[in-house]
Amino acid sequence: MRLATLGNGSRDGELIVVREQRFARAADIAPNLQAALDDWERTAPRLRARSEQLESGAVPGEALKVEALLAPLPRAYEWVDGSAYLNHIVLVRKARGAELPPGLETDPLVYQGGSGVLLGPTAPLELENEAYGLDFEGEVAVILGDVPIGISAERASQAIRLVMLANDVTYRELVPNELKKGFGFFSSKPATAFSPFAVTPDELGSDFHDGKLFLTLISTYNGEVVGRTETGPEMHFSFAELIAHIARTRAFSAGTILGSGTVSNRDPTRGVSCLAERRTRETLEHGAPITRYMRVGDRIRIEALDASGNSVFGAIEQTVTAAGAEACATGNALE
Amino acid sequence: MRLATLGNGSRDGELIVVREQRFARAADIAPNLQAALDDWERTAPRLRARSEQLESGAVPGEALKVEALLAPLPRAYEWVDGSAYLNHIVLVRKARGAELPPGLETDPLVYQGGSGVLLGPTAPLELENEAYGLDFEGEVAVILGDVPIGISAERASQAIRLVMLANDVTYRELVPNELKKGFGFFSSKPATAFSPFAVTPDELGSDFHDGKLFLTLISTYNGEVVGRTETGPEMHFSFAELIAHIARTRAFSAGTILGSGTVSNRDPTRGVSCLAERRTRETLEHGAPITRYMRVGDRIRIEALDASGNSVFGAIEQTVTAAGAEACATGNALE
Repeated sequence: MRLATLGNGSRDGELIVVREQRFARAADIAPNLQAALDDWERTAPRLRARSEQLESGAVPGEALKVEALLAPLPRAYEWVDGSAYLNHIVLVRKARGAELPPGLETDPLVYQGGSGVLLGPTAPLELENEAYGLDFEGEVAVILGDVPIGISAERASQAIRLVMLANDVTYRELVPNELKKGFGFFSSKPATAFSPFAVTPDELGSDFHDGKLFLTLISTYNGEVVGRTETGPEMHFSFAELIAHIARTRAFSAGTILGSGTVSNRDPTRGVSCLAERRTRETLEHGAPITRYMRVGDRIRIEALDASGNSVFGAIEQTVTAAGAEACATGNALE
Repeated sequence: MRLATLGNGSRDGELIVVREQRFARAADIAPNLQAALDDWERTAPRLRARSEQLESGAVPGEALKVEALLAPLPRAYEWVDGSAYLNHIVLVRKARGAELPPGLETDPLVYQGGSGVLLGPTAPLELENEAYGLDFEGEVAVILGDVPIGISAERASQAIRLVMLANDVTYRELVPNELKKGFGFFSSKPATAFSPFAVTPDELGSDFHDGKLFLTLISTYNGEVVGRTETGPEMHFSFAELIAHIARTRAFSAGTILGSGTVSNRDPTRGVSCLAERRTRETLEHGAPITRYMRVGDRIRIEALDASGNSVFGAIEQTVTAAGAEACATGNALE
């Protein structure tokens, strides 16, 4: 089944079940997606039944407007982002002249992201300062059930409740100084955006196996397709392996979101899922980057297509806007 | 007023109002603390009235057992930890032979912690492996209301809803390798524990001003007082300044927890709020650390006393236990 969250003025929005371009309300089963995840054993079968009723026409449904959707989880208890496509790490570190991390192929890179404010699929990217170097990052993400400390990769795949896409927005020019401080990303990672739909692994069928999604991620930047990357073959650590890694010393509660890191393929003809990689390739070829980071008015569209060309999670489609005057006037109090 | 969360089998527990050793239930006002914070304008006055009724005897109340309490927020949307006591940064970096971060006195250090699983004040510290180098870290923490991007330090202090203590547990021996990877702490920071009570700034009176708490933090390790550190004078960045810093590029939703970092004083006779500092001082004096990190059976008690000797937030009191056999058997799948 496909789940989504309709904006209704509340912090968590309203849970809906989606089929094609129609949706059925599901607040009688669980008021919002977090509540459904908190009690998944009870809610999942009822949500599945609602989905089937919508498909059969037993429930008429309502016409879906993507603009009315929030992120599947508009706030989440954790947002943990891996970096499972090694080609991305190699290219991005080249770009900022940083060394490759030790244990690149055996010890996954993950960072803890902010999760209290997550953006819907069509939310504007409000930019305070173009000098921050705004970049998009197209990723696959999963929403987890409860995960105990020390779970094995074998058991971890059972904790994957839903799959979706993320735009893990990054302020590239804030990264080097922040990483120098040694405490990881913080200001360089503003709010992340998510795809309209969160989809159960069974709904994905053969496109999701071995803890990986096998689809084509299309990144369209200002109307130009800049990436047609494959999400499956080059994901070095599967989601199951990433879960086992993050649960080494910590448990996770239902509703934790785990990201794949930017989808990246070695074959340059597949293009990119973020501008930083493109800039690195340009630098390697021409001695300097040509592509600029995102500016006010720029548009990014990220979606995943199956073999039949269906947009499985719906499209993240965001436009960069200038941040409100208030934020500019009162910002950077400590700088 | 003093708020706390009673375990009731649910994920968020039950909100209660506390006076001395008695409590009144408040689930009719808000089922749990997160719900109260989500709608603070409406709930805070009603919770205050309940607190006054409890004090006057208009509501009889029930006898409080600290063992029945969860963390004030058993799961939170964000846990952001600063490092506002510069003496701690200086000592801990000395201990691991790391350089001081650039901009130490002007650019706050913060890291994003895991917030989906937070420990109550008497929860055991389950240790999988003594070689991890388990350490306690006594901190002050605040719970925030909604914080917009770009808030000024002046306005930020109004976003502080509640004050409490934290034991920001750290696996010291996992830190160096993790920081080398450049993405910040992750496995080296297992679940954080919090004090029994979360207290409004007005209840703290003159002990909370200029965005800082002014109390004595007592750390008692295996029955020996190892720290009597002052929380106020050496907090280099106030909570208001830390809020302005973290909100530079991101908004935060109500219920975000923000920590001060380990309370640390330059005067060595005040002792320590974590073992790492003690080990550094021992190394400087004797050439090597004498104190070992925590082992199974060790006990840590952290509380803050006011001038009259009252334990303002109640005591965090945790014992190290061996982690369950299952966790050991299935752990570290990727290692």
